[in-house]
Amino acid sequence: MSSQQQKKLVVGLFGFGVVGEGVYKVLQQTTSLNASIKKICIKNPDKPRSAPGELFTTDAALLLNDEEINVIIELIDDAEAAFTIVARSLAAGKAVVSANKKMIAEHLEELLILQEKYETPLLYEAAACAGIPVIRNLEEYYDNDLLQSIKGIVNGSTNYILTKVLDEGVDYATALLQAQIEGFAESDPTLDVEGTDAANKLTLLLAHAYGIVTEPSSLTYCGIQNLTNEDAVYAREKGYQVKLVAQATKLKYGQVAAFVLPQFVDRYSELYNVKNEYNGVVIESSLADNQFFYGKGAGSFPTASAVLSDLSALRYNYRYEYRKLQQQSALTLSDDYYLRVYVSFNKLFQVPQEVFEQITEWSSNESRCYVTGTIHHSALLQSDWWRKPGTSLIVLPEAFDKRVRIKEHAQWREYEPAAL
Amino acid sequence: MSSQQQKKLVVGLFGFGVVGEGVYKVLQQTTSLNASIKKICIKNPDKPRSAPGELFTTDAALLLNDEEINVIIELIDDAEAAFTIVARSLAAGKAVVSANKKMIAEHLEELLILQEKYETPLLYEAAACAGIPVIRNLEEYYDNDLLQSIKGIVNGSTNYILTKVLDEGVDYATALLQAQIEGFAESDPTLDVEGTDAANKLTLLLAHAYGIVTEPSSLTYCGIQNLTNEDAVYAREKGYQVKLVAQATKLKYGQVAAFVLPQFVDRYSELYNVKNEYNGVVIESSLADNQFFYGKGAGSFPTASAVLSDLSALRYNYRYEYRKLQQQSALTLSDDYYLRVYVSFNKLFQVPQEVFEQITEWSSNESRCYVTGTIHHSALLQSDWWRKPGTSLIVLPEAFDKRVRIKEHAQWREYEPAAL
Repeated sequence: MSSQQQKKLVVGLFGFGVVGEGVYKVLQQTTSLNASIKKICIKNPDKPRSAPGELFTTDAALLLNDEEINVIIELIDDAEAAFTIVARSLAAGKAVVSANKKMIAEHLEELLILQEKYETPLLYEAAACAGIPVIRNLEEYYDNDLLQSIKGIVNGSTNYILTKVLDEGVDYATALLQAQIEGFAESDPTLDVEGTDAANKLTLLLAHAYGIVTEPSSLTYCGIQNLTNEDAVYAREKGYQVKLVAQATKLKYGQVAAFVLPQFVDRYSELYNVKNEYNGVVIESSLADNQFFYGKGAGSFPTASAVLSDLSALRYNYRYEYRKLQQQSALTLSDDYYLRVYVSFNKLFQVPQEVFEQITEWSSNESRCYVTGTIHHSALLQSDWWRKPGTSLIVLPEAFDKRVRIKEHAQWREYEPAAL
Repeated sequence: MSSQQQKKLVVGLFGFGVVGEGVYKVLQQTTSLNASIKKICIKNPDKPRSAPGELFTTDAALLLNDEEINVIIELIDDAEAAFTIVARSLAAGKAVVSANKKMIAEHLEELLILQEKYETPLLYEAAACAGIPVIRNLEEYYDNDLLQSIKGIVNGSTNYILTKVLDEGVDYATALLQAQIEGFAESDPTLDVEGTDAANKLTLLLAHAYGIVTEPSSLTYCGIQNLTNEDAVYAREKGYQVKLVAQATKLKYGQVAAFVLPQFVDRYSELYNVKNEYNGVVIESSLADNQFFYGKGAGSFPTASAVLSDLSALRYNYRYEYRKLQQQSALTLSDDYYLRVYVSFNKLFQVPQEVFEQITEWSSNESRCYVTGTIHHSALLQSDWWRKPGTSLIVLPEAFDKRVRIKEHAQWREYEPAAL
């Protein structure tokens, strides 16, 4: 029925770690994909490899200068080296598939320019939530202005740790070690634990959800590094789970709030049952209510699966159109919103009370204090007491405080997220 | 960044029920969609309408012959009248968006021919699971041979009823009435309750998941009409939910098993927590493990949302390519598989025991008997005792029996679903 011709893909692969090896193996068995790997560039020629020796080289130029190779799959760890490879590939007119969220998030603007300049596609579904087609759906299906918010558990490693701690009572250090043994954690686990990986992914989601191009370092983010057993006790008492959530929510007047913070989620949230290394993304639209995408967000096979779907799309000359970047009514990130938060700390005066617009609960015992209340987002930007060891800040289930007392004026101000 | 030009859509709308009205209202407010409704064709001119009178007509030809109208949105109830409209629209070179699962399922083959002949797209995301982009994802993202199975709660009305019965102890008749009052049930509720609607949707999913074009009437299906309170008691005792599941699973040798039957699902299934009018679809891939899509599958706004996403895609000349229909290694439906089932009935001898390959459990009390065991799918095709009032058949959590004793030979035969 199709008039489209399937393109024969000749692939140059960078990296032969677990994902690269997975992609290689599946391509061997999946002839319908019409793709073959011509050359694999690796760093260490001495490691034994489970593929014919003549496929391997340490010379990147051999792949980049090969006219027959029309697709580069980039699966190496080093973000800066990866960027060089991807930039050179795009400049050489070779389509690129990458799973490197750090590289893409940190170089997003340059990569947009390169894609446009050389009219060459760069696909990276594997960079956010592995096999779950979040980017593709934001790009293609939710391409109108009805998208109210996106809330996701996008880091499998921290979610695995949180599940062990909350559900099984394991302590944090043991849980992190388990995550590394299982292979969910990044080779540098601080990227996961401190929220950097999630912020990288939120950067990608922001571009495809709202057409906002920003740098991950300019987003408000924190990981799970400061959470304590007392926080877990509080969560259990209230019937909450603790999740590291990447969130972007439309406010009024074309403004968007975006942050990565630990959140308490109650059992009414779709994210409540996302356990272990699984990822889940809730997409809230003005019309369709909540939609939820769920699947394995880490691990070699789910990542390889997303790489293969991108490869498959390249057969039909698919590319991201970044349509929302071109819409006239551009959206921008806002700092002007209120968050309902729980903050726990060891010693009184560790947390500046004056940053709270309103305090709803206050508790302390010999080991630990906590306070719940409303805080203006700019108060988080202006200082970093809330990220310091010994202090943990967790967003409450009703993240946004719509009605906040402004201290100076001692009156209530309405602050509603945008409605349709 | 895009080189693609957005197409201006001039829409002719058929039907102004709740979905049609929703689409009209949102288009009024969503200027970014670049679409305007020029004319609305209705059956009853005397009903008061919440749109300017000059938009309405009862003359279909006024829309179909209008050269300026380049998109027809078909949202009427009558499947045969809808088919005539859609066929004429495609022949006139007008793109079509439809939510009419019955019409599309029953005329799928003709509609494929018409789309090809006139090179005109027909989109129908709203026809399966309303706003959840299942068709688009099967078509675009899972377009390789790694798709192992698809299992979905695709009918919101029966799921609403089952939730009321299982979780709240409401009896079936009351629950059905509630579903109708809430507006989830089709105007003819037997379409929902007897599984016809789910079979229609499975027909669409089969085409996009596996490239299999079939008629809904040739699928094995049954609804929830025969379920009893005793079945609900059994489910509660075992910790199961009862769900009406549309399922397609790859077997060996390019064969696919497809059926719509009530199933017991345990708490390890993603479908377990799909409650009320929500829909959920589990897509199992050899690589990515289970992925799960969840959202509202019924109601006017979720349906309107899917219609709008289709409309949005038409701006970029999107069309279904039905790629899997063209793949050399075509898949076919199979009758040769074993199902693990629970069957309950009022009187002994109501169920022919000889149809069971193996019986694992047997129970009876004064009011009701049940048996669990393994049955060959062909035994369901050959007679209809299992669909008769008084008998209910529910698939057990491990649907497929991989190891079945063939009575004639009194030996075990391996029956494994296809692996990668």
